[in-house]
Amino acid sequence: MKLTPMIALGAALASASTSLAEEGMWLFSALPKDKIQAAYGFTPDDAWVDHVMKSSVRFNSGGSGSFVSGDGLAITNHHVGLDALQKMSSDTKNFVRDGFYAKTQADEVKCLDLELNVLVSTEDVTARVNAGVPAGATGDEAAKARRNVISGIEGESHDKTGLRSDVVTLYQGGAYHLYRYKRYTDVRLVFAPEQQIAFYGGDPDNFEFPRYDLDICIFRVYENNQPIHPEHYLKWSVDGVKDGDVVFVSGNPGRTERLFTLSQLKFSRDVSLPAILRTYKRRDVAMTAWSARSDENLRRAKHDLFGIRNSRKVLDGQLAGLQTPSFLGAKEEAETALKAKIATLPDGSAGISAFSDMDSAQMTIARIFTRFRVLESMSYPRPNPVAFNSDLFVFARTLLRAGDERPKPNGERMPEYTEAKKDSMQLDLFSEKPIYEDLEIITLTDSLEEMTELLGGDDQTVRAVLAGKSPHERASELVRGTKLRDVAFRHKLYDGGAAAVTAANDPMIELARTVDDEARSLRRTYEAADEIRKQAQAVIGRARFAAEGAGTYPDATFTLRLSYGSVKGYEDDGKEIAPVTTIAGLYQRSDEHHDHEPFDLPDTWVRSKASVKMDTPFNFVSDCDTIGGNSGSPTIDRKGEFVGIIFDGNSYSTSGNFGFNAARSRAVSVHSAGILESLRDVYGVTALSQELVNGHR
Amino acid sequence: MKLTPMIALGAALASASTSLAEEGMWLFSALPKDKIQAAYGFTPDDAWVDHVMKSSVRFNSGGSGSFVSGDGLAITNHHVGLDALQKMSSDTKNFVRDGFYAKTQADEVKCLDLELNVLVSTEDVTARVNAGVPAGATGDEAAKARRNVISGIEGESHDKTGLRSDVVTLYQGGAYHLYRYKRYTDVRLVFAPEQQIAFYGGDPDNFEFPRYDLDICIFRVYENNQPIHPEHYLKWSVDGVKDGDVVFVSGNPGRTERLFTLSQLKFSRDVSLPAILRTYKRRDVAMTAWSARSDENLRRAKHDLFGIRNSRKVLDGQLAGLQTPSFLGAKEEAETALKAKIATLPDGSAGISAFSDMDSAQMTIARIFTRFRVLESMSYPRPNPVAFNSDLFVFARTLLRAGDERPKPNGERMPEYTEAKKDSMQLDLFSEKPIYEDLEIITLTDSLEEMTELLGGDDQTVRAVLAGKSPHERASELVRGTKLRDVAFRHKLYDGGAAAVTAANDPMIELARTVDDEARSLRRTYEAADEIRKQAQAVIGRARFAAEGAGTYPDATFTLRLSYGSVKGYEDDGKEIAPVTTIAGLYQRSDEHHDHEPFDLPDTWVRSKASVKMDTPFNFVSDCDTIGGNSGSPTIDRKGEFVGIIFDGNSYSTSGNFGFNAARSRAVSVHSAGILESLRDVYGVTALSQELVNGHR
Repeated sequence: MKLTPMIALGAALASASTSLAEEGMWLFSALPKDKIQAAYGFTPDDAWVDHVMKSSVRFNSGGSGSFVSGDGLAITNHHVGLDALQKMSSDTKNFVRDGFYAKTQADEVKCLDLELNVLVSTEDVTARVNAGVPAGATGDEAAKARRNVISGIEGESHDKTGLRSDVVTLYQGGAYHLYRYKRYTDVRLVFAPEQQIAFYGGDPDNFEFPRYDLDICIFRVYENNQPIHPEHYLKWSVDGVKDGDVVFVSGNPGRTERLFTLSQLKFSRDVSLPAILRTYKRRDVAMTAWSARSDENLRRAKHDLFGIRNSRKVLDGQLAGLQTPSFLGAKEEAETALKAKIATLPDGSAGISAFSDMDSAQMTIARIFTRFRVLESMSYPRPNPVAFNSDLFVFARTLLRAGDERPKPNGERMPEYTEAKKDSMQLDLFSEKPIYEDLEIITLTDSLEEMTELLGGDDQTVRAVLAGKSPHERASELVRGTKLRDVAFRHKLYDGGAAAVTAANDPMIELARTVDDEARSLRRTYEAADEIRKQAQAVIGRARFAAEGAGTYPDATFTLRLSYGSVKGYEDDGKEIAPVTTIAGLYQRSDEHHDHEPFDLPDTWVRSKASVKMDTPFNFVSDCDTIGGNSGSPTIDRKGEFVGIIFDGNSYSTSGNFGFNAARSRAVSVHSAGILESLRDVYGVTALSQELVNGHR
Repeated sequence: MKLTPMIALGAALASASTSLAEEGMWLFSALPKDKIQAAYGFTPDDAWVDHVMKSSVRFNSGGSGSFVSGDGLAITNHHVGLDALQKMSSDTKNFVRDGFYAKTQADEVKCLDLELNVLVSTEDVTARVNAGVPAGATGDEAAKARRNVISGIEGESHDKTGLRSDVVTLYQGGAYHLYRYKRYTDVRLVFAPEQQIAFYGGDPDNFEFPRYDLDICIFRVYENNQPIHPEHYLKWSVDGVKDGDVVFVSGNPGRTERLFTLSQLKFSRDVSLPAILRTYKRRDVAMTAWSARSDENLRRAKHDLFGIRNSRKVLDGQLAGLQTPSFLGAKEEAETALKAKIATLPDGSAGISAFSDMDSAQMTIARIFTRFRVLESMSYPRPNPVAFNSDLFVFARTLLRAGDERPKPNGERMPEYTEAKKDSMQLDLFSEKPIYEDLEIITLTDSLEEMTELLGGDDQTVRAVLAGKSPHERASELVRGTKLRDVAFRHKLYDGGAAAVTAANDPMIELARTVDDEARSLRRTYEAADEIRKQAQAVIGRARFAAEGAGTYPDATFTLRLSYGSVKGYEDDGKEIAPVTTIAGLYQRSDEHHDHEPFDLPDTWVRSKASVKMDTPFNFVSDCDTIGGNSGSPTIDRKGEFVGIIFDGNSYSTSGNFGFNAARSRAVSVHSAGILESLRDVYGVTALSQELVNGHR
């Protein structure tokens, strides 16, 4: 499960209240058919459900998609395909900037490492998993026993069926389901538009609506060097949907935290989110100011700046959700009701005391939170503490700790230095990505300044880190003094282990050493409290499942779910936002901005202005409950046809990890008619558009 | 004293160590001639000093300037003249954007309300002031007696000489000097370049170097409807200065806090500056994101956004200074030495205990600081608490409090509602400036969110303010529900007093009422502690003066001072920054930025590219000690000639209010040769350039 690419590219999709019709990312095996029938007068039958499930495709690069032709076409978002596009680009072919179309089958370009999964079946294995855990086992013993029985089930299924077999933990451990997938690893690019139109409106329009984006990427799936002919694929709806039509979203929402307890939510509201946002905002300001000084600065900072702004928008939306009194009020009521139910269960007292365990773990974390973030951070495996926003520092800490950890038995190491994580750790450590001295000084200076603000100028650790210099002088001295920019030097120290690391006497590594005892100690405290938190969460989850059963949906786990709702506008600041935009709106937005970036149009769109059908629907919103991981999910009508593709959510959707705001959260799709019109009259790729309409070449 | 215009327009000039040659904003009556001689082999004689003093001009709009012709030409910065330029502009004549040149005397345009002051003499009246204060008077009694004797001295001098006569408090009350000024109120515009070249490089280049700005504005001073012929004016140096030349700056530095105690400085470093900066940064991010959504948004937010960024840069620089260990280390050493000296004075114990009084006042303020800022703020008279960043809220609080305060006796009112402040309070309250509903919702939402973060979502005041809504919903409801956008309505409530204000039942006023008891209580606590702080500061200042005498310079007081130094580059991030730029560099910077705003050139400069002398010096830096208020000060050579005009400082100068960073703080001037070349070969204003060179028309 890799959610970063989606989040990094504008689709941390998401969707506050607990019993509204459109909430829920439902298991295909437990759809709320009565609710759907009551709301929309339509019940998906078993054939509909099976067809949609087997037409849905999971992209292992972190998104969703679907089969849209009997000859193996699979469609997803441009930003889900982006990683593959980047890897197949070269100095002479820029697939990201210029787009791509394979005129013939021979022209289709194979992706380097893209894996697709299609869910074939699911099976409830809860009883078998629970039977494998001895009664009275302690937390650690129970976890170990559970891991054992799960691997057994997975191995047995794989041996029997040849299918990828994953046991998925649902309801925080309330249920375990075995998911079997057909895997495809020969995936070839057929069509991609220019990134400019795929991500039209850039950062300003990200998480907003109205929108005008052609965020699509079309692949063809092969086996044995031939296109597959999937039994199930979605028929393309030429006209698509309009305001008020019922729609479904079939995809793989990545992660939700809707079962967070009240104390966890308040910690996020009052402590963690504000702190993280302050860091993002100061970094945004520092990088924006530096970028404005020269085009070269802008070029160097652009990627990081986009990432900061995207994350900032998501977290701003999450915090706004938590700062809405009705949202937390509903959570509080629900928690009180849940506790009352749990109290009546046979072993209810364990469930109730898990809430207190959670509260005290949360208090421990709150106590050390600032120092922990500053010196260690939660975002390991990549060690990126707030005080040291510097790639060179990350190398330094990795080398220092790798030297100390690697001689230990595998089981006793910090997790990021275990054999299982070795490849990704080395990939980061030996990355050839350019490191700009001036940008490193800017980011390290700003983060040393933030450290000084957060811990105070008289703090002993701050004094030791600054070594009598100002943050700027110290950052400059460290960045210029270290030899870690040199990949060969990093290789040498890594290979030489702790002795070589010490002998190097590198200033950045010595800085990492200065804070290492305290950072490790903070991390031990954090992890102990976090383990209590996880165990309490699991106890509460199981108690909840026992009290409420499968009548609710489990938190998202990057596995296949179905959401439902309708094409529906919303009210924002007293303005009614209409649910469907047209291609005409795209040209209008470009005009309003004098065609300035990021509102400028690619040449293909400029040239086709006279011929394209302006009133064609282009993007639309629905009140389906989605979140990051749903990027690329098909939007489906009651006939089971493809009517659009999810690529973003509006600003109210960003708090969807904590809960669903039924009134205002919206999922944003590219409209099936808009895609078809673009292919025909902008790109002139008739064969492809024909294949989509006909379902076959 | 009005420093805002300078700060608002990029010239919060400033210049860390205590005994370096170039530090100091010296009294003309107590120049450190020995130090200057030792450093530069030159001693300004009495005639030189008198000539420079009488050639220097104070602009009451908040800056400095000088006479540069015997026919009354006075030169200052464009950003100092800006207020006058705006007031004389109309729908059909945009002097700010388009610039201006008066071909004939008849074309010269009179400023509406610009007052210039020229210092004629100074006199030490310390003994007389102190004699007027009875021994053993309490703090309040002493202050009252002091105010009485000072008004007596000022009135007597004015009656005798007809000159504006101000008693200036120096060394925090260690000395009192009587300053007599000749006033000029008929000031006419002769020349202004386009703002685009006056403020070339805009926000990105603000407080940076190298620079390429023609930040000048030339007026002619009249009396009895005729140009004056001042006895003293600065001869224009056609060639100006070069790297290494000694230079002097004669002007009116606005305010420094170099005598802050260590506890005050640490409070600024660890509490107040970080808090204020976080507010600026989040506002910068919110406004930038909103501005990027449309050109109209950008237009509406532009002015506020520039103000935020400018203030943010100044405070970032101040904090960076305080976070430099050597800076505070030197302050700590100096304070220890000072305390040792004070302890040996006859009444030294009062001085020593003033330090403890300061520390405890500082602790009281730290304790309430967050709530005070959120609900009341330090920036009265304009009530602008962090929680309510909204012009409409300011109207609401002003009406509520005016209703409560105005019936009280004048002496018992909050200061901003006294008769003395009535005009400026009414000016704000009845301002016709446009209020944009959408922008108000954005800024109020962001500030309600900040309140929730700072006080916590469960805080009783936060809950009362939000009234069960999210910050966004609440801001939207308040801004749309209030009638305070209507100036006539504000007039009606103001005239109707408290009864009308209550009867209006306006939601924004009721919000102001909800927090008023707590806000007033916080303010009483703050003001009591602040009074202790002020009195302690005065006791320390006097003890310091008693211990050290006039061998040091007093903190800046927007009165005439002389700084000295030399044309000198500096090291930044390991790069040597050359001290002088040329006109060629301007064209190069524009090219590098593809002539995009704010690096685009006015048409006059584009057209003259072929004819202008590219190697002419344009801007230069010197290590003179300057700060806001010095904007427009002449830079003078050893011959007493005009070699440039101060318009900004580099980033290291922004911490100049706390102390002078001799190694890196630099004052930025427009070069006299660059000005002349611009007038001749870009603007073709030959008569004016001749007058400057000849000293006469």
